[in-house]
Amino acid sequence: MASEKVLEYLQENRQLHLDQLCDFLRIASISSQTEHAADVQAAGRFVADELRDLGLAVETFDLGGHPLVYAQSEIRPDRKTLLFYGHYDVQPVDPLELWNHPPFEPVIENGVLYARGSSDDKGQLYAHFKAVEAYVRTGQDLPVNVKFIIEGEEECGGHSIYRFTEENPDKLACDTVVISDTTLYNETTPGICYSLKGLCFMEIRVNGPAMDLHSGSYGGTVRNPGNAVAAIVASLTDGDGRCLVPGFYDSVLELDQEERDGFAALGYTDEILRGETGAPGPWGEKGFTTLERMWARPTCDVNGLVSGYGGEGAKTIIPAKATAKVSMRLVPNQDPDAIAAAFREFVLAHAPAGVNVEVENLHNAAPVLVPRDSDMVKAGMAALEQGFGAKPVFIREGGSIPIVGTFQDCLKAPVLLLGYGLATDNIHSPNEKFHLENFRRGARTSAILLSEASR
Amino acid sequence: MASEKVLEYLQENRQLHLDQLCDFLRIASISSQTEHAADVQAAGRFVADELRDLGLAVETFDLGGHPLVYAQSEIRPDRKTLLFYGHYDVQPVDPLELWNHPPFEPVIENGVLYARGSSDDKGQLYAHFKAVEAYVRTGQDLPVNVKFIIEGEEECGGHSIYRFTEENPDKLACDTVVISDTTLYNETTPGICYSLKGLCFMEIRVNGPAMDLHSGSYGGTVRNPGNAVAAIVASLTDGDGRCLVPGFYDSVLELDQEERDGFAALGYTDEILRGETGAPGPWGEKGFTTLERMWARPTCDVNGLVSGYGGEGAKTIIPAKATAKVSMRLVPNQDPDAIAAAFREFVLAHAPAGVNVEVENLHNAAPVLVPRDSDMVKAGMAALEQGFGAKPVFIREGGSIPIVGTFQDCLKAPVLLLGYGLATDNIHSPNEKFHLENFRRGARTSAILLSEASR
Repeated sequence: MASEKVLEYLQENRQLHLDQLCDFLRIASISSQTEHAADVQAAGRFVADELRDLGLAVETFDLGGHPLVYAQSEIRPDRKTLLFYGHYDVQPVDPLELWNHPPFEPVIENGVLYARGSSDDKGQLYAHFKAVEAYVRTGQDLPVNVKFIIEGEEECGGHSIYRFTEENPDKLACDTVVISDTTLYNETTPGICYSLKGLCFMEIRVNGPAMDLHSGSYGGTVRNPGNAVAAIVASLTDGDGRCLVPGFYDSVLELDQEERDGFAALGYTDEILRGETGAPGPWGEKGFTTLERMWARPTCDVNGLVSGYGGEGAKTIIPAKATAKVSMRLVPNQDPDAIAAAFREFVLAHAPAGVNVEVENLHNAAPVLVPRDSDMVKAGMAALEQGFGAKPVFIREGGSIPIVGTFQDCLKAPVLLLGYGLATDNIHSPNEKFHLENFRRGARTSAILLSEASR
Repeated sequence: MASEKVLEYLQENRQLHLDQLCDFLRIASISSQTEHAADVQAAGRFVADELRDLGLAVETFDLGGHPLVYAQSEIRPDRKTLLFYGHYDVQPVDPLELWNHPPFEPVIENGVLYARGSSDDKGQLYAHFKAVEAYVRTGQDLPVNVKFIIEGEEECGGHSIYRFTEENPDKLACDTVVISDTTLYNETTPGICYSLKGLCFMEIRVNGPAMDLHSGSYGGTVRNPGNAVAAIVASLTDGDGRCLVPGFYDSVLELDQEERDGFAALGYTDEILRGETGAPGPWGEKGFTTLERMWARPTCDVNGLVSGYGGEGAKTIIPAKATAKVSMRLVPNQDPDAIAAAFREFVLAHAPAGVNVEVENLHNAAPVLVPRDSDMVKAGMAALEQGFGAKPVFIREGGSIPIVGTFQDCLKAPVLLLGYGLATDNIHSPNEKFHLENFRRGARTSAILLSEASR
């Protein structure tokens, strides 16, 4: 348990910390838009100044993209070391007209803070800053060494953090990487995410005639790329969504009984799924519950399908081409490169005669699995329970955080995925939000984690 | 044979007629664009004035869309009656940047006239006007009664002509309807088109979740409309393009040996198809030649396929919905309404669970078959042979001209499809053109037809 002084400091300075977070959120650090380049720089400086004020040694690295901010406390060999990762950049805001308030003018309504970046990831990151501050300002020794590596390219797919991690494993050396860029299980239940899905993103391009043809003049004489792409995509899965690419399931790590029991105990229902998605109903691979499919079964989804005329009414053409974007979400032990190769081979083998088919692997991310029985996970569970006043659960996540794989590979350190947001926080969407209670509890949890991790 | 005087008149006034046609072509009568409404009116007046100057009785009818122009010569019961149909409106011109000359400033290069509407349909229609003019100006009795019904909504799907035909069968009563809105077989071979395909245009809409979902968060839990639409479309045809909708081929009128021999004699080759389409190669239903499939076999083609994200790179979503536009080109004796019903039933029966599927019949057109042994067809063949100086052939057309079915139904008169354009005239595309020789030969053919039809 963190000292009473530390927790009292957080309690007493709630309003100040919230005001400071709002200053951080006012910076429109949209990393993917050139016109916001100065804002992204400003957000990086905000982070660096904040950590420097806490007495940490701060360095800023420019690897050609947006700056990486690195900071560390005094490193004492007798203490464990935690590396906190986060990002100070945010998603674009469009469609702007769907926001109830301007995205960079934070507003608080009914205990909820609305602003772009409030949950993803400025708010969650800032909870860690305040935890360290509580130790420093109350004159308490930090129980562990802390390092921060904060990037500004998470939302624009930049590669600075990857290169830096590969080139500086000693600088980032740590006992555990702590990342707060995931979510609680739900409003009342905190959780530790112990597995992320990987990703294999493919594009199938079907080319037929040199131009769109009149379907009366040439129907039945040349192969239609629209029909062809449908046949290819249809060949990828069966009626239950099982992927038919040979070998796809060969190395899938199956859930053990403890995991299945744990998922079942969470009480995720068809009604919850319908409420969250508006879909007619649950659907998918036989033999698994909805939560098992969501968190622990690989998937194969069309993300985009385009051919011919999509406007109102009729345009009777044989389209010149067709494109399908297809992504597979992978689970632990599937290898994205091997899956990409098998997918490519399968599609080309099923490519109909009369059209030219190309398959491109646009990008991959490795799946992640973290042991649930490590001391750090125990420390995280204890911190969450004290910080949120509720027993945490083990959860998985269907999304991907590609940097996690790089941290594991280069630093040989486990990763603790400690989320303070909610799945309903509208990240990447209009009206992004962060609950003030989750910010406050998150800062408490972070402070307690520093103490629990030192044991 | 038309009198020498008539043909001489056409020869001597070639330049004048070309200049007049260019005046007609300068009117930007794009019927589907509101900003060109006054131009469409002007083109209608041009037609009415022209026919009135020839001594015909002209009436203009406004049925709520663009005006219908009706004209008739003095009707003498001892003469046969020909009804000429055509349209004075034109297609939109975009993409404008692909035109070598402004579309409404006619330019002649190497014996070719470039302008929007030059082939479809002002130029072809104008040939008939000049034929009548040749009789009138040279003081020759017209060998037949002539009627004209010229519309301004052919390119915007208007219904005035349909309603007018249904409501005024007596006014339009005739021995034959003559339509020049098709093509020659090729540059050296004129032809009479004796069959048009019909059309059944369907839209399939697949609805899943209420909004696009993160494919990591919800992959494998709800059915993906993109995958679903691909499965539905793939179920429609086999690998050779044969439609799998039950009963689809039941009433198809098979080609007889004479037709197959006639098509074969035309010498259409795979190289011609590749040259025209740029497609990797011919493809389609087994047991039929390319020309047989093009002209006389029903087809089932995707015209548009849209779901999810089609832009550059990756966006990993489960799309909320998917749409497929599918049209079937029908051959004589297929019934579009029956086909639409069978299609709908088939798709709904193949609709996967977990998504909502709607099927809409957007529009239909009946296939057309004209007897090849009638006196009027013989007259047309004779006129073409004399007008073009080459033996004409029988051809079919894969496209549809829906008004033909209405003429046949309401007027109980056969239709003569006498084309003066070329398949390569870029109708509906940039750089639409009409060969001056075909305009000249067309006018001669029309003049001779009036005489041949009187026998």
